[in-house]
Amino acid sequence: MPDGTQSGEAKRRALALRYGAGNVPAAGPWSPVIASLLDHRSVRGFKTDPLPEGTLETLIAAAQSAATSSNLQTWSVVAVTDPEKKAVFATVSNNQKHIEQCPLFLVFLADLSRLERLGTAERKDLAVLPYLETFVVAAIDAGLAAQNAVVAAESLGLSTVYIGAMRNDPERVARELDLPPGTMCAFGLCVGYGLPEKLGEVKPRLPQDAILFRETYSIPDEAGQRTAYDRELEAFSKRHEMSAYTWTERVLNRVGKLTAINGRERLKDQLRRMGFPLK
Amino acid sequence: MPDGTQSGEAKRRALALRYGAGNVPAAGPWSPVIASLLDHRSVRGFKTDPLPEGTLETLIAAAQSAATSSNLQTWSVVAVTDPEKKAVFATVSNNQKHIEQCPLFLVFLADLSRLERLGTAERKDLAVLPYLETFVVAAIDAGLAAQNAVVAAESLGLSTVYIGAMRNDPERVARELDLPPGTMCAFGLCVGYGLPEKLGEVKPRLPQDAILFRETYSIPDEAGQRTAYDRELEAFSKRHEMSAYTWTERVLNRVGKLTAINGRERLKDQLRRMGFPLK
Repeated sequence: MPDGTQSGEAKRRALALRYGAGNVPAAGPWSPVIASLLDHRSVRGFKTDPLPEGTLETLIAAAQSAATSSNLQTWSVVAVTDPEKKAVFATVSNNQKHIEQCPLFLVFLADLSRLERLGTAERKDLAVLPYLETFVVAAIDAGLAAQNAVVAAESLGLSTVYIGAMRNDPERVARELDLPPGTMCAFGLCVGYGLPEKLGEVKPRLPQDAILFRETYSIPDEAGQRTAYDRELEAFSKRHEMSAYTWTERVLNRVGKLTAINGRERLKDQLRRMGFPLK
Repeated sequence: MPDGTQSGEAKRRALALRYGAGNVPAAGPWSPVIASLLDHRSVRGFKTDPLPEGTLETLIAAAQSAATSSNLQTWSVVAVTDPEKKAVFATVSNNQKHIEQCPLFLVFLADLSRLERLGTAERKDLAVLPYLETFVVAAIDAGLAAQNAVVAAESLGLSTVYIGAMRNDPERVARELDLPPGTMCAFGLCVGYGLPEKLGEVKPRLPQDAILFRETYSIPDEAGQRTAYDRELEAFSKRHEMSAYTWTERVLNRVGKLTAINGRERLKDQLRRMGFPLK
């Protein structure tokens, strides 16, 4: 497919937005799909316009097309449009109003209950299910599936944002959705037409040599990288949020104090009560 | 973008391959990106041909463009081309020869060590890091990133397959890659040009109404669904593997006995020794 010669300028532009003009990696082949991936932004403001008929089914077909460990398909999704339910989830997620705005809210589940029911029907004990490993498989596979749904949605001109804060209270979410034991919300996903003033711009990431290693892990010049990235992100947040935060400040705010995760420190206890022994 | 009217026939065909002709969901809007997602197959046989220069950097730019929880970027990747290392990983992964064949093997890491180093440099205690929640964030975010890399690779005519069996022995992998504490291999990913005879066909999945629920979870007619899906997958595996297995048989083989996961029942203990307290 494309070799990057025609699209060289667009490629350089896309990479400069993603990494900052001073940190463009020496990327090679390019394609329209890759251009679309690079252009991703999480959007936190939606029109209430409904989605075209069949959009949900299209997104789920994309999601189910992602790889799934041993074809176990240990994830499910609940599509929520009910305003009362969305209001509950907005509250669970620390008052994220975009959950109420978006016409479609997808709750992605790590779901071992389907296999448990299969075991019951076949009268077999499923020794592998209670292990942490199986929960990890389910959570990662929910992620692969959801990311395909995101890529599909963006190709249709829709916007999305993941809601990890649904894990603030998985038991409350389970009650609201009548989830059986062995299922838990891995995260939510808002889907809709983004408000023009909320589409924002591509958010810069750490330079590639901060996260990409060759043959072995080797700790790079992180002080230097961080100073440059802090500047990049400070400028970005000033343009977007009227107040400037560096990456360092953001990280320290987010992982420095338990209060910042709004109950997610209880995840293990909640999961155990929800049918995930995490052996 | 496209509304599906021109591509109606291609859409029906793609959905019939993914779900079986009797189970085509009523999908709506469509796009070339979505057609590419639906066409995914995991490929387990590669030419040794090298990748065009800059392919790795392109794939990682796509990966870094995926959403990441609170922009924490708690994942990294080690790109492995060294034949000796790949041979070790093939052994860890229960003799998956395609790891040795593929020109590029990506080891995706859940990586909290970068934030730990940041905390050390800033002389701050990062109270959130030891919790299961933070490990889950890192594992899911590694999944979102990797799935973008997969979508990007396929758009370039490359093939991939995830290697979850790298979790058979994360400590062995860590030694081989010099991983610091607070990092672990979430999974591997083979990238290369698939052997024509190994490209296979699209693998059918469970029908949408087995995994997609509306407003609340409700257990569907799973016996009926499973009978139909077992038939679908039995025919698929007969065409591909010369021996026929139903989905039910596959699931029972994979999760019925601990021996089937080749040591992954030790994941929790290994993670704790590797710097993930999983509080």
